[in-house]
Amino acid sequence: MQLIKGDIVYSSQDARLIERKDSYLGFENGKITGIYDSLPEGEHEVLDRTGCLVIPGLSDLHLHAPQYQYAGIYMDEELLEWLEKHTFPEESKYKDIGYAEKAYGMFVDDLAKSETTRFAVFGTIHRKSTLLLMKKLSASGLKGFVGKVNMDRNSPEYLIEKTDDSIDETKAWLDEAASIDGVGPIITPRFIPSCSNELLERLGVLATERGLPVQSHLDENPSEVEWVKSLCPWSRSYSDAYDRFSLFGTTPTIMAHSVWPDDDEIALMGKRKVFVAHSPSSNANLSSGIAPVRRFLDNGIPVGLATDVAGGSTLSMFRMMTSAIEQSKLRWRYVDSSLRPLTFAEAFHLATRMGGSFFGKVGAFEPGFEADILVIDPSMLHTTLYGDLSPAERLEAYCYRKPGEGLMDKFVAGRRIF
Amino acid sequence: MQLIKGDIVYSSQDARLIERKDSYLGFENGKITGIYDSLPEGEHEVLDRTGCLVIPGLSDLHLHAPQYQYAGIYMDEELLEWLEKHTFPEESKYKDIGYAEKAYGMFVDDLAKSETTRFAVFGTIHRKSTLLLMKKLSASGLKGFVGKVNMDRNSPEYLIEKTDDSIDETKAWLDEAASIDGVGPIITPRFIPSCSNELLERLGVLATERGLPVQSHLDENPSEVEWVKSLCPWSRSYSDAYDRFSLFGTTPTIMAHSVWPDDDEIALMGKRKVFVAHSPSSNANLSSGIAPVRRFLDNGIPVGLATDVAGGSTLSMFRMMTSAIEQSKLRWRYVDSSLRPLTFAEAFHLATRMGGSFFGKVGAFEPGFEADILVIDPSMLHTTLYGDLSPAERLEAYCYRKPGEGLMDKFVAGRRIF
Repeated sequence: MQLIKGDIVYSSQDARLIERKDSYLGFENGKITGIYDSLPEGEHEVLDRTGCLVIPGLSDLHLHAPQYQYAGIYMDEELLEWLEKHTFPEESKYKDIGYAEKAYGMFVDDLAKSETTRFAVFGTIHRKSTLLLMKKLSASGLKGFVGKVNMDRNSPEYLIEKTDDSIDETKAWLDEAASIDGVGPIITPRFIPSCSNELLERLGVLATERGLPVQSHLDENPSEVEWVKSLCPWSRSYSDAYDRFSLFGTTPTIMAHSVWPDDDEIALMGKRKVFVAHSPSSNANLSSGIAPVRRFLDNGIPVGLATDVAGGSTLSMFRMMTSAIEQSKLRWRYVDSSLRPLTFAEAFHLATRMGGSFFGKVGAFEPGFEADILVIDPSMLHTTLYGDLSPAERLEAYCYRKPGEGLMDKFVAGRRIF
Repeated sequence: MQLIKGDIVYSSQDARLIERKDSYLGFENGKITGIYDSLPEGEHEVLDRTGCLVIPGLSDLHLHAPQYQYAGIYMDEELLEWLEKHTFPEESKYKDIGYAEKAYGMFVDDLAKSETTRFAVFGTIHRKSTLLLMKKLSASGLKGFVGKVNMDRNSPEYLIEKTDDSIDETKAWLDEAASIDGVGPIITPRFIPSCSNELLERLGVLATERGLPVQSHLDENPSEVEWVKSLCPWSRSYSDAYDRFSLFGTTPTIMAHSVWPDDDEIALMGKRKVFVAHSPSSNANLSSGIAPVRRFLDNGIPVGLATDVAGGSTLSMFRMMTSAIEQSKLRWRYVDSSLRPLTFAEAFHLATRMGGSFFGKVGAFEPGFEADILVIDPSMLHTTLYGDLSPAERLEAYCYRKPGEGLMDKFVAGRRIF
């Protein structure tokens, strides 16, 4: 068994912060064995990180790997201008495997150095580049899902597929992806405006037949919602349109954003257990709005946090935690004062345990959970109160003041990343 | 003359980003002399920072030095609970000069290491601790204003003054503060609820007679605004109440927050040229709301950015820039879609030139401006686009992705801080 000694913090099933100061976190064969007050008997490999925080890794439920290159630039532009001027031209570069090699190398290096241990990532429409991305992520030791993107309408000529080609390429991609360790494929229609009914239908069949997870975008901003209404006059809602194609929880599903769902959609999401990838940085950057996270939770909808690079401008999931809290307070103030804001404990719960549950037993330190572990040295927090702060208070101060600094060790399913 | 070679970015008077790639920024006797395309003739001390960004220092127009110790903790609580449980007990510790020595030491060390070069800081009611803070800030080389706080009503017994004592201590503080270099005194009634009419009146006389600047809080949240209405039934508004005591622009004045001003107040602020210290992190953390920054600018009101530690949870002014932009986009979405959001260039303008103007010719690189300079190595930005990005695009990406990292050099009025 391996043991890490430190100040352990994780989230209970009901979103309370569990703190175990100066304790030992045990794991073997990639799984957590338990938390011990003192060194258990027997031969163990002990990593002494006394005074450091030991927390579960964070799950980023939605980000676009090919957009990382321009993260944090051109943020003054609105969604459509931004897509046409930057997103689509940049994504088209990935038909060149040489470019993908270089750019995905940078992306995977930076993601590996970050607090993220699990991910649900969009690639591009390009099969070979997407496979390359999966292999690079696999080699880094991080775990998660990557999707080859499908898009056959309302897209520029240089970044569009014919419907048959889109399906054929997806099948070829799935065959080749099967041998990649730790990084699985996820069916990824970009969003309804860029996928024909036929493409959506065939992707739904593929996901259902092969038992594959699904990811897409939902209700990001009001004009997009109107557009979907005009494209799918036969559907009750954006969610219903996905649902008619078996792309809404028939298999495990992540929908990014969901800033503007109506009541029926919320009911359907709760019924189908569709995960919301809440992306606060992106939703502010692109002027989308603030997602009703409290309503999701009250309706039994699983919610994780997401950077949504490059709508979001940073890979930092710690910053997503505090952004989610800040935005929930502004939503309380301006939109719905009957729904209380998120607490720090809740934001941590979404970033670790609830978001992690998309990947199995991930995001907590109970026996049998996968050993996704971050060790943080919080001694850069200069305060006279330091000695009196509980581990959870140190974690809160760390996330607000110095997010991402002082990362000492990172393990995914027991494998050391750094 | 000293010269720094690098990629120079600063804000023009009309808030455009001026970029001078691979150029020389010259300064001597604490003042900018100019920007040169090539090395000027003569004997010069040249700091070669080729490839680095060279930008003006940032001005933090509002923060509470004694609250730094708990920055980023207890952020789930609401304003009044938070003041009573944490703010007032912590501030009361500063009657002990030994505690102030330790705590202000940490604060000044961290502020000196940050991107902030100029500040307007609240101390506590304690004269000696406030003088100690001023001396420590002076020794650090940073420049700005510090206020001994005045409060004689609606405050806990352990943190309140009698009116006469408050004025006497303020006068004694002003006498002792006169000899401190680079850090000046600023008259600091905490806010109207904690200052009697008599105290406000006498502080207004003191500020006017001695030509001293003023700082306080204004229109932070709706219940506070209601409270001020009930305390000052004779005033037309919160702003008008300050104004009747000559504390609203009679001398240079900073008002923190101003999230909920009415139209008359905006007109008065524009007329009196009262600076708004816009504090986006704090206004979200304490669920206050989003200040109408565009309205301020359209009405000729000078606006700077502020961390408002510890309502704000970080000393990072770079993060205030991106928070201000994000919040302006959410305000556009939820409150007033006729007022366009802030651009990156505007946020940079507020953080450097417009906020800096409270301190004189500060925050730009035109001849005669004070030489407040930051040098940043942005090479941690991993992107294939790096070589093609202009200095301003690199600065934008830096502020969003890696705020506060890679600070190489910092000068205030030509004096090297690190």
